[in-house]
Amino acid sequence: MHIQNAWYVAATAEEVTVKPLRRRICNQPMVLYRDSNGAVKALEDFCPHRGAPLSLGFVEGDNIVCGYHGLKIASDGRPDSMPGQNVKNFPCVKAIPSLEYGGFVWIWPGAPEQATRDALPSLPWAEGDDWAYGGGLFHIKCDYRLMIDNLMDLTHETYVHADSIGQKEIDEAPVKSRVDGDTAITERYMENVSAPPFWQMALRANDLADDVPVDRWQICRFSPPSHVLIEVGVAHAGHGGYSAPAQHKAGSVVVDFITPETDGTMWYFWGMARTFKPQDTEPTESIKQGQGKIFTEDLEMLEQQQANLEHYPGRRLLKLNIDAGGVLSRRIIDRLIKAEQNVPAV
Amino acid sequence: MHIQNAWYVAATAEEVTVKPLRRRICNQPMVLYRDSNGAVKALEDFCPHRGAPLSLGFVEGDNIVCGYHGLKIASDGRPDSMPGQNVKNFPCVKAIPSLEYGGFVWIWPGAPEQATRDALPSLPWAEGDDWAYGGGLFHIKCDYRLMIDNLMDLTHETYVHADSIGQKEIDEAPVKSRVDGDTAITERYMENVSAPPFWQMALRANDLADDVPVDRWQICRFSPPSHVLIEVGVAHAGHGGYSAPAQHKAGSVVVDFITPETDGTMWYFWGMARTFKPQDTEPTESIKQGQGKIFTEDLEMLEQQQANLEHYPGRRLLKLNIDAGGVLSRRIIDRLIKAEQNVPAV
Amino acid sequence: MHIQNAWYVAATAEEVTVKPLRRRICNQPMVLYRDSNGAVKALEDFCPHRGAPLSLGFVEGDNIVCGYHGLKIASDGRPDSMPGQNVKNFPCVKAIPSLEYGGFVWIWPGAPEQATRDALPSLPWAEGDDWAYGGGLFHIKCDYRLMIDNLMDLTHETYVHADSIGQKEIDEAPVKSRVDGDTAITERYMENVSAPPFWQMALRANDLADDVPVDRWQICRFSPPSHVLIEVGVAHAGHGGYSAPAQHKAGSVVVDFITPETDGTMWYFWGMARTFKPQDTEPTESIKQGQGKIFTEDLEMLEQQQANLEHYPGRRLLKLNIDAGGVLSRRIIDRLIKAEQNVPAV
Repeated sequence: MHIQNAWYVAATAEEVTVKPLRRRICNQPMVLYRDSNGAVKALEDFCPHRGAPLSLGFVEGDNIVCGYHGLKIASDGRPDSMPGQNVKNFPCVKAIPSLEYGGFVWIWPGAPEQATRDALPSLPWAEGDDWAYGGGLFHIKCDYRLMIDNLMDLTHETYVHADSIGQKEIDEAPVKSRVDGDTAITERYMENVSAPPFWQMALRANDLADDVPVDRWQICRFSPPSHVLIEVGVAHAGHGGYSAPAQHKAGSVVVDFITPETDGTMWYFWGMARTFKPQDTEPTESIKQGQGKIFTEDLEMLEQQQANLEHYPGRRLLKLNIDAGGVLSRRIIDRLIKAEQNVPAV
Repeated sequence: MHIQNAWYVAATAEEVTVKPLRRRICNQPMVLYRDSNGAVKALEDFCPHRGAPLSLGFVEGDNIVCGYHGLKIASDGRPDSMPGQNVKNFPCVKAIPSLEYGGFVWIWPGAPEQATRDALPSLPWAEGDDWAYGGGLFHIKCDYRLMIDNLMDLTHETYVHADSIGQKEIDEAPVKSRVDGDTAITERYMENVSAPPFWQMALRANDLADDVPVDRWQICRFSPPSHVLIEVGVAHAGHGGYSAPAQHKAGSVVVDFITPETDGTMWYFWGMARTFKPQDTEPTESIKQGQGKIFTEDLEMLEQQQANLEHYPGRRLLKLNIDAGGVLSRRIIDRLIKAEQNVPAV
Repeated sequence: MHIQNAWYVAATAEEVTVKPLRRRICNQPMVLYRDSNGAVKALEDFCPHRGAPLSLGFVEGDNIVCGYHGLKIASDGRPDSMPGQNVKNFPCVKAIPSLEYGGFVWIWPGAPEQATRDALPSLPWAEGDDWAYGGGLFHIKCDYRLMIDNLMDLTHETYVHADSIGQKEIDEAPVKSRVDGDTAITERYMENVSAPPFWQMALRANDLADDVPVDRWQICRFSPPSHVLIEVGVAHAGHGGYSAPAQHKAGSVVVDFITPETDGTMWYFWGMARTFKPQDTEPTESIKQGQGKIFTEDLEMLEQQQANLEHYPGRRLLKLNIDAGGVLSRRIIDRLIKAEQNVPAV
């Protein structure tokens, strides 16, 4: 159902503290915490002594102490000590590779020896201070792939988000989808349209007129295991659209880290990265408010779609040209899962 | 578990508007709406594009537009159009025969070609203005047949509704039950008894003394798929009881449309139809209040009875003479279900 | 999963009145009530007529009347009467042996002929007025055996109850566990330690200094089916510890009656029996408050431990020396269940 050997966003950086956090990811209960140096750690949330959740314990230096009977576990999962006990032959707790990058805590559910830092996606806002990022987190009761479908076909904006980013021209503009290695890309360009309310706001934030025709673009990129980054923006019409010089446009990157919790539920880390006024916190906050409101509109649709698909498990769905982005993304997922299953288990 | 080829009450007329309504009936999720002419329509609540519920969409003329990506479905279930798509080969949505009658929206879960208007029960208050009707709707977590049992054996009034319509004489009066074609009938007549509080109220509403002995009757009629109509009333004693002239009695019809939602849950459309003061809205409201309070008393009993029967699925129950009404009704249901299953599937 | 032929605490004496109480014990739904003489009675909560719960009925003398159609059941389960019916051949309701003792209502889920009063545990506070008892009731979503494990290994006090009864020396003091017939015993003695807050409070309540070194003891006794009584206390150091004369010590018995509801849920009747100031109600109340707060700290741990064990059903847990009390208790349970299954069913 999901790729094992990949980095998933497990939490925002702020969520993980010295107070342990229980979270289930890809069906595995895990405990996330920071050691006394602030480094993030992840372990299976199961004490080998009596099965208590380590997340009800506490951090001591680099270790976590089970809150039931005091078994102390090192951050590599080895039992460190327990009052009155020789822990030498105690089983280890499964250590889950974890790291912090771009404002997120990432975990790797699969084979630890394959968990290299290079396998992380490169996030521009993590690499320089000419970017700003803001976002939030939703828990949604649906298969994570329904969210990938959602984001790789933005025609839904016309219907679900009619009051903010939707506009009739999205439906009418043809979409082009393709695969480039393990990335699926779906692009749509609209010329000489009026800017919908969200983009009027962004134009004003960029000190640009909001009542003139614009060229608009949406370039969605899926990459494994389940990330979707979308370049979106508008330029005053006639200046080159996506390629227009900076002073004529307002653009940003919609960031979607989609993390399966169980087969039918997911964590949705959504946000927006932008290059305009990156030092200014006011737009960060107002964009986050607007985006949070927009993404809330998807929740009921996704959860009822999930309920419908569970009610009719055998039904075949349509795969239209607009669905190609999702279809290509799912094919990449399926291919990588299959490849993982063919290699010897680790 | 339930008859397919029959009209079920799906909603009250007021519940169905141009804003689509999702309701599950006989295990099928469906969307109910009115087109721009006010005609009621019902479709399976599943968009063939991606499985989204059509009930989150909107009505446009005679059509419903999926709120996810804009597939427009005609009220006969045929795909009408979709921006940028040729829908000619899209699969149809299952159209569910529906109509409006007697203040209710009715649907037919089975073979559409058998769904004729004649198969509707005849409701007197729908046919002339010498009747008034008022009622309400409950959602109950029990098999719909437990409600049929409940209504076809009114001895429970003595216990469940002791303060309103119950009285000792119900228990003591013999009951006669019989089958007439596809109808099960159970009758009870009590002579020279005192009127319980609900009937004292009804006598006063008819400008009759409420403190004199009365003859009381209860004639319960089950008809498929799961309707129970009960003639109830009291007459001042010695005037002929059920057959007494109108000026000596207060009578009405308890109306029970019982609609399976799932195997263990149901919709209960309850109400009362009366001939006295039919133009007067005050009694309609006070009867509805009283009846709603009475039927609320059944809810906990039915839901805990359901829980008990699920806990002991193999247990055999008693079938006493007082249970004959329910037993005969269930036999009619079973016979009709069996007959449906013997005909080729449609 | 649990012993059948044994007395379980079903309710506190105050919970059972003439208003019937529904409770599920060892997976069986039962109704508990008092007859008009105040004697406690227990029946399966299932009316043989239509499966309604008898607990929605009412008590009439020694009998319970079903609240649906009036079948009256004697307290031995025999149908007594029903309006208009001859009940001679009606099936009986299963009568469940029950009695009142020590402030509790006890029931016997197994063979009624084996349910003798001698099989009750002897509770000192029920036998003389030199004892006082106070306690409460929790509903917990875990296998009842996890609670037995909890109480037969008090090292968890150091972690779960660090602010009240926990102290480092518990971990460090060796524990001795043994079996004596059907009883499992685990003992721990600590010498010359400081008293933790709960015991400082108890010392003061006994008019003893709370700031001097004490000897502390914990003697846990499991007895079937699932009772744990724990002698606990402190004495001013050097006076003989557990065996010190009464004027140097404060001691009591922690009382734990653990009753399975279903396989994954339980009722926990907790309390404390004491010999100091038994006529005084103030300590009863303050101890109950303190103990209630302490036992609340276990709830989340037990419920998440249960969730973890359900998530990883195959996992083997460690059995350390500190776990011996729980391990020995479970062995007694398993042995007695096996013995019950080898005798012919009754």
